[in-house]
Amino acid sequence: MNFNEQNHPFDTATQLTKGSGIYYGHTSERYANMVGPFGGVVAATLLRAVMEHPERKGEPVALTINYAAPVSDGDFNIKAKPVRTNRSTQHWYIELCQEKDIIITGTAVLASRRDTWSATEMKFPDVPTANEVKNFPLEGMPSWVHNYDMKIVQGSPFSFSQPNTKDTSDSVTLQWIQDKPRRTIDFLSLAAMCDAFFPRIYVRRKQMVPIGTVSLTVYFHIDSETLAEHGNKELLDHARALQYRDGFFDQTAEMWSPEGKLLATTSQLVYYKE
Amino acid sequence: MNFNEQNHPFDTATQLTKGSGIYYGHTSERYANMVGPFGGVVAATLLRAVMEHPERKGEPVALTINYAAPVSDGDFNIKAKPVRTNRSTQHWYIELCQEKDIIITGTAVLASRRDTWSATEMKFPDVPTANEVKNFPLEGMPSWVHNYDMKIVQGSPFSFSQPNTKDTSDSVTLQWIQDKPRRTIDFLSLAAMCDAFFPRIYVRRKQMVPIGTVSLTVYFHIDSETLAEHGNKELLDHARALQYRDGFFDQTAEMWSPEGKLLATTSQLVYYKE
Repeated sequence: MNFNEQNHPFDTATQLTKGSGIYYGHTSERYANMVGPFGGVVAATLLRAVMEHPERKGEPVALTINYAAPVSDGDFNIKAKPVRTNRSTQHWYIELCQEKDIIITGTAVLASRRDTWSATEMKFPDVPTANEVKNFPLEGMPSWVHNYDMKIVQGSPFSFSQPNTKDTSDSVTLQWIQDKPRRTIDFLSLAAMCDAFFPRIYVRRKQMVPIGTVSLTVYFHIDSETLAEHGNKELLDHARALQYRDGFFDQTAEMWSPEGKLLATTSQLVYYKE
Repeated sequence: MNFNEQNHPFDTATQLTKGSGIYYGHTSERYANMVGPFGGVVAATLLRAVMEHPERKGEPVALTINYAAPVSDGDFNIKAKPVRTNRSTQHWYIELCQEKDIIITGTAVLASRRDTWSATEMKFPDVPTANEVKNFPLEGMPSWVHNYDMKIVQGSPFSFSQPNTKDTSDSVTLQWIQDKPRRTIDFLSLAAMCDAFFPRIYVRRKQMVPIGTVSLTVYFHIDSETLAEHGNKELLDHARALQYRDGFFDQTAEMWSPEGKLLATTSQLVYYKE
């Protein structure tokens, strides 16, 4: 896999300096969320520590990131440990710390893929092309949103002026997304985009409440060659929540190429307060 | 949470003896799969190490188990470490070892739930009751299957005598399941049942190929009180694969009570060879 060496803000935000068995990084103001950095960039940074590790073997197929505490703006360090290396798979445990506190944990599975019988069962959604959809106004949005060209086809959270009692029937969102400025996709930016959704509860309730992702899982369904072929084109993302109960809701989503190739599927569990 | 103290085979299979900062267990022949133990019981055993840990605070909301290597029949030990304890959430890292090798890793998020606005978006499937569906013949099935009362409503893999070229259009499975003998459900048995599906690729292709789960994630949507109310009734499970490509496929599933309460949602990534 080749990293983009283009000084894109995303590469700067996930940049790591190697110490002895440890990686040092710094949060990026450009990808700030309402409190701390955008969780998608945090996930990408943990994965980058694996991708840059000299003992890495293979490409990511599964990634789980647990947000144990809010990341403070400033310095952090990451330890990525290959806990098990097999012939065709490799398992990692990853920790992000600030001072001596564990803030984020993660596990990653890497693999060497082989050509096999393949099939896509999920149907590519019926949507207008990205060119046919308008961007939404960016005023008042957290910094990270400004780094994406996002076009919401269905399931926008932006009608906060409506009465709170409005309880729409579902939280399904369809959106086109790409990095702004454009950047050739890789596993890191794909992982970040897996978290680049407005929270399902905002969409469902047309109301903002305190939320925070507690755990994010990404399954990568493609290799770096397929990503290179994709280049810097937009993705179509399809997300929904299945259940909100007693302070936690889930989100599952698919990340498609415009040609209908399923690049990744993802799920997350999100804390909410109300 | 109260564990079942009834000497049920499931409790015996997940039983742990506490050493100093470490838990010792032994695989159960009764829950054997074709090679090694049934992955659902492995996941439940790692979660049990967390549930029995004196520092545990709260109940599980998210669990990810990574199958790094095959578990050999025999002894194992589990280290469960509370990496971060917050006011209302607690994050764990878990490792199962045999001899000195790391075989399984996992992370768990525990939480204290509060009453909030709640809603279920996923629809309970239209199915006959468990009483109206027949069990399938157990001849030739691995041992673990005999510990469940499983009734497949749709999406059975059992027509292996058909030509391999038969490529059905989807792998959607609907099945009723409960422990056999009956056992009051808890987080452990629910976690195990999240893995109690025949592999999607068997359903899709009506053909057996070598497979192995590499990563399993469970989101628990209920607390122990709700599980106690559920008692030992059956669950309705709804599973499908979205993508099979180059040696890996995914599975996502929902675990319902017969009354339409969504108890858990789960996803897994599975290696396949062909």
